[in-house]
Amino acid sequence: MTAELARAALAEHARLVQAELERLFDELNRAAQEPAEKRLIAAMRHATLLGGKRLRPFLVKAAAELGTAHPAAVLRVGAAIEFLHCYSLVHDDLPAMDDAPMRRGQPSCHVAFDEATAILAGDALQAFAFEVLARDDWPASAELRSELAAGLARAAGALGMCGGQALDLAGEGRALEEAAIVRLQALKTGALMAFACEAGARLAGLAGQRLEAVRSFARELGLAFQITDDLLDVTASAERLGKPAGADAARGKATLVRLLGTEGARARLDAVRARALAALDSVGAEALLLRATLELVIERSH
Amino acid sequence: MTAELARAALAEHARLVQAELERLFDELNRAAQEPAEKRLIAAMRHATLLGGKRLRPFLVKAAAELGTAHPAAVLRVGAAIEFLHCYSLVHDDLPAMDDAPMRRGQPSCHVAFDEATAILAGDALQAFAFEVLARDDWPASAELRSELAAGLARAAGALGMCGGQALDLAGEGRALEEAAIVRLQALKTGALMAFACEAGARLAGLAGQRLEAVRSFARELGLAFQITDDLLDVTASAERLGKPAGADAARGKATLVRLLGTEGARARLDAVRARALAALDSVGAEALLLRATLELVIERSH
Repeated sequence: MTAELARAALAEHARLVQAELERLFDELNRAAQEPAEKRLIAAMRHATLLGGKRLRPFLVKAAAELGTAHPAAVLRVGAAIEFLHCYSLVHDDLPAMDDAPMRRGQPSCHVAFDEATAILAGDALQAFAFEVLARDDWPASAELRSELAAGLARAAGALGMCGGQALDLAGEGRALEEAAIVRLQALKTGALMAFACEAGARLAGLAGQRLEAVRSFARELGLAFQITDDLLDVTASAERLGKPAGADAARGKATLVRLLGTEGARARLDAVRARALAALDSVGAEALLLRATLELVIERSH
Repeated sequence: MTAELARAALAEHARLVQAELERLFDELNRAAQEPAEKRLIAAMRHATLLGGKRLRPFLVKAAAELGTAHPAAVLRVGAAIEFLHCYSLVHDDLPAMDDAPMRRGQPSCHVAFDEATAILAGDALQAFAFEVLARDDWPASAELRSELAAGLARAAGALGMCGGQALDLAGEGRALEEAAIVRLQALKTGALMAFACEAGARLAGLAGQRLEAVRSFARELGLAFQITDDLLDVTASAERLGKPAGADAARGKATLVRLLGTEGARARLDAVRARALAALDSVGAEALLLRATLELVIERSH
């Protein structure tokens, strides 16, 4: 029921996000001169526009509903996070990393273009994420823009997403302790999802304890997302995933499902869900959409 | 004579920059938990700390002398630009790009570590550049921090450094027109060097026509740097370069030296130097260090 609510709101918001991403790319492309520049931007578009649920931009929106935020600001921050997320997918798929030929049911960027272009498209997408966040053509104070840019950078960097991917690669084929797996996932997926929630809450004017409660919720949400993803990897069909099923298991990736088994991971997911909902208790009734998003994220595992 | 002045000032400033880079890395490393995180940071350090003249941070300083800037701000902006520059070297050296096993007389990052780690170290260095620029622990207003973050992102992105590298790869083995080569170099090397000069001028409080004059100078400086680099590639020894001589020529890179010949390129360099000095005329006598830096950059070609 609540997942249903989030699903409808997610689909509606995804259309707005798509339009914002397109608009920002069009603007970039208009300033390009040489064919090689346009081809690089085409690779960035390929990596960003061919599907994707736009969950992270939606987390910005769901958290922004805890107060009053400018819709254009919600979309802009969501777009920056999505550019960042999509760059990470391009680089994760590279032959030297996860060597994944497919993504979202389409050829990965390095397959559709070439490896050098995929590296550069990822690099340029990361820069673009910071550009659209830091520049002054959307409704946010300079304080907020620089604060969000610093927060996105932390979520993306060596002690965020990049560090998580390094842990992931180091953990392949090795039996990690549960604490190490939780750390890996907190960095690899959790940091950016948590930033999305936090950024939305900041846009809505939250501070102090309510902001802290959103942070706690976001950490649990990230963990729930990752456990669900790992459950999907061993249970879902390739068609549903848009990539080969069991690919992570085949590479010996360290996951809680591998450590605890399918049922153990499901039980852990229940505990994470309970903690996430408890964190929202102090936030208030406006957290309806965040609650619904949690259910939507978890629902995928059934 | 003036080049001598710049050389001494460059060496002195490089020591301060080195200390700032070390300090920022130490702080990052202290917050790392797992060995794989520390190894990623070690790869970032390898890419950044093993040599390099720190020319870009010095351009910030030379331009900052046009007014009054806080020394800590000059160092911080220089460090951010150097992180960005060093990430680009790591990715440029990758097998799928220039496939360069050596850099600054040391094994390239992907040789000293591995390819996946080099990709991630570059990615994390880019994020770190934006983090240290955007966060509020150095003397600059939020306005200036967000403005500089947006400027660095533009200089780094699809219509800056990344676009230049895409043009460079597309131009390999092909005869480019002079305009296309100039565009390639303006994006690949020029954008970040111009940003360094502009950022220093902004820190010093410059605006309007004087800021515009610094921008013009910076564009010519970038071109002078690139022509000098291309001349060095065909004339200098491997020992002096820290990488194999003639490597760019062997890959059929599009350069003005290739198009105009060595003597033609030298003549072009003279013209660029004259335009650069003319741009500084309206800036005033404080531009001594910028003038000297131009001479230092060009001197390498003799």
